[in-house]
Amino acid sequence: MSSHPQQSAVTVLGLGPMGRALAGAFLDAGLRTTVWNRTPGRNRDLVERGAVGARSAEEAVAASGLTVACVVNYDAVDAILRREAVTDALKGRTVVNLSADTPARARDTAAWAAGHGIQYLDGAIMTPTTTIGTPAAVFIHSGPEELYRKHLPVLEALGGTHTHLGEEIGRAAAYDIALLDIFWTAMAGYAHALAVAKAEGVTAQELAPLAKGIGAIIPPLFEQAAEGVDSGDFSGEGNPITSAASSMAHIVQTSEGHGIDAGVMRAAEGMARRVIGLGHGTDGFIRIAEVLGRR
Amino acid sequence: MSSHPQQSAVTVLGLGPMGRALAGAFLDAGLRTTVWNRTPGRNRDLVERGAVGARSAEEAVAASGLTVACVVNYDAVDAILRREAVTDALKGRTVVNLSADTPARARDTAAWAAGHGIQYLDGAIMTPTTTIGTPAAVFIHSGPEELYRKHLPVLEALGGTHTHLGEEIGRAAAYDIALLDIFWTAMAGYAHALAVAKAEGVTAQELAPLAKGIGAIIPPLFEQAAEGVDSGDFSGEGNPITSAASSMAHIVQTSEGHGIDAGVMRAAEGMARRVIGLGHGTDGFIRIAEVLGRR
Ligand SMILES: NC(=O)c1ccc[n+]([C@@H]2O[C@H](COP(=O)([O-])OP(=O)(O)OC[C@H]3O[C@@H](n4cnc5c(N)ncnc54)[C@H](OP(=O)(O)O)[C@@H]3O)[C@@H](O)[C@H]2O)c1
Ligand SMILES: NC(=O)c1ccc[n+]([C@@H]2O[C@H](COP(=O)([O-])OP(=O)(O)OC[C@H]3O[C@@H](n4cnc5c(N)ncnc54)[C@H](OP(=O)(O)O)[C@@H]3O)[C@@H](O)[C@H]2O)c1
Repeated sequence: MSSHPQQSAVTVLGLGPMGRALAGAFLDAGLRTTVWNRTPGRNRDLVERGAVGARSAEEAVAASGLTVACVVNYDAVDAILRREAVTDALKGRTVVNLSADTPARARDTAAWAAGHGIQYLDGAIMTPTTTIGTPAAVFIHSGPEELYRKHLPVLEALGGTHTHLGEEIGRAAAYDIALLDIFWTAMAGYAHALAVAKAEGVTAQELAPLAKGIGAIIPPLFEQAAEGVDSGDFSGEGNPITSAASSMAHIVQTSEGHGIDAGVMRAAEGMARRVIGLGHGTDGFIRIAEVLGRR
Repeated sequence: MSSHPQQSAVTVLGLGPMGRALAGAFLDAGLRTTVWNRTPGRNRDLVERGAVGARSAEEAVAASGLTVACVVNYDAVDAILRREAVTDALKGRTVVNLSADTPARARDTAAWAAGHGIQYLDGAIMTPTTTIGTPAAVFIHSGPEELYRKHLPVLEALGGTHTHLGEEIGRAAAYDIALLDIFWTAMAGYAHALAVAKAEGVTAQELAPLAKGIGAIIPPLFEQAAEGVDSGDFSGEGNPITSAASSMAHIVQTSEGHGIDAGVMRAAEGMARRVIGLGHGTDGFIRIAEVLGRR
């Protein structure tokens, strides 16, 4: 494998479930892959499969022109990269940071990288570890387009689709935050619905097929609503937010009637009531997006 | 149309968007359809299409063996049905109540019906008005199975799928509440995500295709989680709730950093933190369902 040119060498920092999946995909693609993790011992399987196990983060980043960081958040990224030995070793090289955090942290990391002669791309992984190396993986990236194009061939070893969202470095994190907002809110709704259903004598497996059905009608609504939101058209089309608020009140009542916390739905109903109170009761539910964003 | 036997006659009480859609589908199926609405004038189109416009609710229910009620909630149902003239006219006849409310209200209405010699089925409509009369409509019902079987041929004129969930009269409302919980919580997450995205310079139409993508991976997760929830297995499988809580904190931080209310996500994160505090940090997110339901 040492016959690969240096451009085809890649370093992975962080060997949690996702870092291990990334390193595994790079190995499967035949790339010279160097790995490092704060806690030793996590590299065993990867080294058996041909990875180079670096003894330090500085040794790891020095081994490749491209370093992919995938740790829990940017505090962890900082703890690894902002040590002098590592920062020095990264000079003139590229970091692609696939750890999750906020757009503000991505911008802060880019400013630090620029100040130390390090080329920097920010990204996020939108799918679970099991998708890595398969067509189902979804990666989003932001930062200098030329830099992205340069490293895309190596990143494509991770499988799936890669989308460059723009040069503004915070963009991938912004999409990540918004998409995780949708995901975790929906999952919170499902967990709560299961608790209420159980209190009413309905099992999770009884509810699930219908839950799947209602879940399937939601994604098309996302696209339908988007045009109106961008153009400021929030019309209810026979589905006024007053009607949603009435349903939400029934949910709160049934939930709390069983002694089940309804904090999430109370907060959601509160947003709906606020929209109605501002005079938009005949608008659709999505008017909430506009009212939340008012300054 | 007067050649139809009385069993094929149906009355619709409530001519909001949904009531009108129901009456329209009955007319399209060739059933003798009588309609009534509290506020006059809403029956014009339907009468032109052949419906009988009753002058009072008592006249309306007397015209058919089966009355379908579809008004805003059970306060409205009570305001219509629990007047002596209407209650008397309903004696020996059947009411199918397709208005939305709580399981407790459904049980209360069934008790009232039993006390007045009225046969009663409760139901809910899970899809929008545009689906009525098409295969896409979804109806759920509960109450005496024999009564359900008797009226199913007429109800099937409404199109779609009809599911009898059991004899316990509150069951349809319980499913309705749980499914609407999922639906409105998810929509609240989307509205919030759009507000945060916009503050980060990402338009709704830019986010929507990826939102649709993440929305599509959620319904299969509902079914995957259900078996574990019923059997008390909440294992995280490399997706511990601690990791979700970390994402949720990023969302709250980014949202509030833009001055956008994050009450829904704060409540959801609070549930996750509570689960972690109870010692279930390595479990999956769905452990929330069990913790919420503890007494
Ligand atoms: N797992 C998924 O399905 C998935 C999907 C999409 C995105 N992601 C994202 O991918 C990233 C990694 O996730 P993961 O699933 O691998 O597990 P994780 O639990 O989020 O991260 C574990 C990694 O972070 C490292 N770490 C934590 N604190 C550190 C510190 N202070 N200094 C240095 N390293 C530190 C851990 O090292 P130690 O071993 O030394 O603790 C380990 O390598 C996260 O940002 C996550 O949001 C994950
Ligand atoms: N629209 C949908 O897509 C949809 C989907 C699924 C389920 N549903 C359910 O279907 C039911 C009807 O919904 P909808 O869309 O037709 O509109 P709605 O706004 O929920 O209900 C309007 C109907 O309720 C009547 N009403 C309200 N208060 C009343 C009272 N005190 N006494 C008598 N009648 C009263 C109205 O009469 P007036 O004209 O006199 O005000 C009108 O007929 C609701 O329970 C709703 O949750 C609707």
